[in-house]
Amino acid sequence: MAVAYELRCRDCGKRFKNDPLSSCDECFSPLEVVYDMDAAKRTFTRESIAGGPASMWRYQSLLPVPEDYAAPTPAGWTPLLEAPRLAKRIGAKNLFIKNDAVCLPTLSFKDRVVSVALANAKIFGFDTVGCSSTGNLANAVAAQAVRMGFKTYILVPADLEPAKILNTQVYGATLVRVEGNYDHVNRLSSQIAERFHWGFVNVNLRPYYAEGSKTVGYEIAEQLGWRLPDNVVVPMAGGSLITKIRKAFKELVELGLVAEKQVRFFGAQATGCSPISTAVKAGSDIIEPQRPNTIARSLAIGNPADGPYAARAIRDSGGWAEDVSDVEIVSAIQELAETEGVFTETAGGVTTAVTARLYAHGRISPDDVTVSCITGNGLKTTDALAGKYEAERTIRPRMADFEEFVAQHEVRGIVVDDMVSGELVGGEYVR
Amino acid sequence: MAVAYELRCRDCGKRFKNDPLSSCDECFSPLEVVYDMDAAKRTFTRESIAGGPASMWRYQSLLPVPEDYAAPTPAGWTPLLEAPRLAKRIGAKNLFIKNDAVCLPTLSFKDRVVSVALANAKIFGFDTVGCSSTGNLANAVAAQAVRMGFKTYILVPADLEPAKILNTQVYGATLVRVEGNYDHVNRLSSQIAERFHWGFVNVNLRPYYAEGSKTVGYEIAEQLGWRLPDNVVVPMAGGSLITKIRKAFKELVELGLVAEKQVRFFGAQATGCSPISTAVKAGSDIIEPQRPNTIARSLAIGNPADGPYAARAIRDSGGWAEDVSDVEIVSAIQELAETEGVFTETAGGVTTAVTARLYAHGRISPDDVTVSCITGNGLKTTDALAGKYEAERTIRPRMADFEEFVAQHEVRGIVVDDMVSGELVGGEYVR
Repeated sequence: MAVAYELRCRDCGKRFKNDPLSSCDECFSPLEVVYDMDAAKRTFTRESIAGGPASMWRYQSLLPVPEDYAAPTPAGWTPLLEAPRLAKRIGAKNLFIKNDAVCLPTLSFKDRVVSVALANAKIFGFDTVGCSSTGNLANAVAAQAVRMGFKTYILVPADLEPAKILNTQVYGATLVRVEGNYDHVNRLSSQIAERFHWGFVNVNLRPYYAEGSKTVGYEIAEQLGWRLPDNVVVPMAGGSLITKIRKAFKELVELGLVAEKQVRFFGAQATGCSPISTAVKAGSDIIEPQRPNTIARSLAIGNPADGPYAARAIRDSGGWAEDVSDVEIVSAIQELAETEGVFTETAGGVTTAVTARLYAHGRISPDDVTVSCITGNGLKTTDALAGKYEAERTIRPRMADFEEFVAQHEVRGIVVDDMVSGELVGGEYVR
Repeated sequence: MAVAYELRCRDCGKRFKNDPLSSCDECFSPLEVVYDMDAAKRTFTRESIAGGPASMWRYQSLLPVPEDYAAPTPAGWTPLLEAPRLAKRIGAKNLFIKNDAVCLPTLSFKDRVVSVALANAKIFGFDTVGCSSTGNLANAVAAQAVRMGFKTYILVPADLEPAKILNTQVYGATLVRVEGNYDHVNRLSSQIAERFHWGFVNVNLRPYYAEGSKTVGYEIAEQLGWRLPDNVVVPMAGGSLITKIRKAFKELVELGLVAEKQVRFFGAQATGCSPISTAVKAGSDIIEPQRPNTIARSLAIGNPADGPYAARAIRDSGGWAEDVSDVEIVSAIQELAETEGVFTETAGGVTTAVTARLYAHGRISPDDVTVSCITGNGLKTTDALAGKYEAERTIRPRMADFEEFVAQHEVRGIVVDDMVSGELVGGEYVR
């Protein structure tokens, strides 16, 4: 049985039928998808979900697609990993990693939003799709559009990481490098979507796109055994993800799939681009745009579209926001890899470093069940680790050479146990 | 109910109890794990498998681990993708991609073998593990060992791709760069494993390690709806994978989970390292070692341990082997990305180019159900595509600039449809 959905203004509540629209024509606030929750009570059950595929499409009846929609590419259903070694290091006890560094098909949580957005691009009859992106979204749109037969234009800031550039071009997408930061790129994209009548996933398809993020929240709850965590730490670029995980949890409570609970939401940003965390710390919902200057380029959005909503969600939940330096970001990338075997991109370094600081500052209690959301893969931002590992001298393929190598390493104390050498001092990583 | 397993010599059949051993002390042939197939008939059923996790551990009762073993890291259960656009281009109809480019946790099929090998390293009480590797295995061992508390030594040829080096070091593994090719590295590793009493996954744990590869075969059969394909195309480095997929299919037939069928196995190598395909083409099982010289470094094993068994498996099945040039490998990487949205490393370029040639040469019939095994991720070998994409000039964030950009692109014909510009001429990609 299908669950009906439509668009509604997030602020004034005005209703819209399903169309490629992103904001209310009366109050200019963003539109959001709402569902017939009475119908959902019948179709969106623990049993129906458990019988679904091992992908985000197990939650299809609360995603804005027709009942019979068949996604051409699997996405989502990523591991929720226990993180006892990282936990020990940062003074936590019940820490989990939601690992979208290995999200199918292009290794970031953006695959989730793109899956839903492109489904709607098909429904609305677009033949060309696109996006403005800081990298991960570019990869996801380029790869998924191929399997759906779209022409693709991807607009990015000119200084994007090489791996993210290649991982867009290789799929045959037309890449447009724009002089300026993401906010310039995004503004141009809005104009293009309107002028050319193209489906831009994060412009005129944004309400549908954003619904894909909910699946992170559904998965966390299901993977915890249908219960909500005490805290969630979420990286913030445009600010949408944190609001959508919150929406997911609310829907699960409303449908009786999990017990109600006050989940606290914590936002993570890089200090070099921290408009939302700055607002939260000031006790405000008003976002002062910033000019980004951080290695965490996937979070480098100085004027975040959902910033006010993210700030409000955090404060309403009793959470907090923090931001960390580029040095801390790099150390945290290494820390997460060395403790839990998860290699994340710079955004994941932000989330990990912020999580550590929240424990260090007592904002999260050690006994709480906390989920730290890792959203992208380290192979996409290898340049962030440039110079961090020395090129060990080579040895000849002889036992004597190897024995000498081992002896030198033991003297220098470089064995795996000691490689985990970060120390947390006053909430900052020092190595 | 547990399924008992033990080691047995692949040639003389001598039985061994479970120990870190790789070859028969009588005839020096490799050892292999065999199972109590009567017990397996009761435990390894379609129903028990369907009720298992969405990982390779759904097949746990036919893997060499205790019944109650709990893997600390999810691995496997990768998508089997329909590939209609690639199929059309190469003259196929029923082509599937087994996509281990997105295998958890480190994006290659080596995660499967390492999962099983490290489980046994724990059982045998090793505190230090290692491997000789052409890259993917290094990544998998380094990442998975962290979550199991092992010390790790990884030996690689000194000239490995930068992303594979970084993706080993980041987990805190001790990386040992050896002057020479893989065969030198591997010989040294055998000596080290013995001298230091360490668990080397592809040396003294090799029989257990190799069993992990079977899960590729199990998954293909299950994902095809519990039937076997007509053909499988498999890349060959050491030659183990192709023999283990065959073993998997045989076990499934023996247990009555699929109907018996003559599956033909096709091996894929780079011409610059083609000892197995050379033997197959000569109608021989005798492998003449080669000195590798190819960009497909993950396949650059000049003296493949399982080469004779791979050659025999291919010929017995009625299959064939082919090898392709470095130029074809790069074109095929692009072709696969542009048609199916899958970005693979050089080894996947080998498999894709060989698959195309097999159709072009009439060795595979268009109507056959064929599975092409993609085993690693393109983000690990980005250097292979160096210079393949021009850095488009940047535009200013203005509509006029964008309109000019689009107009120029349309004149040059560079839109997505035409980007797929490879043509297959006589079984070789030309671009």
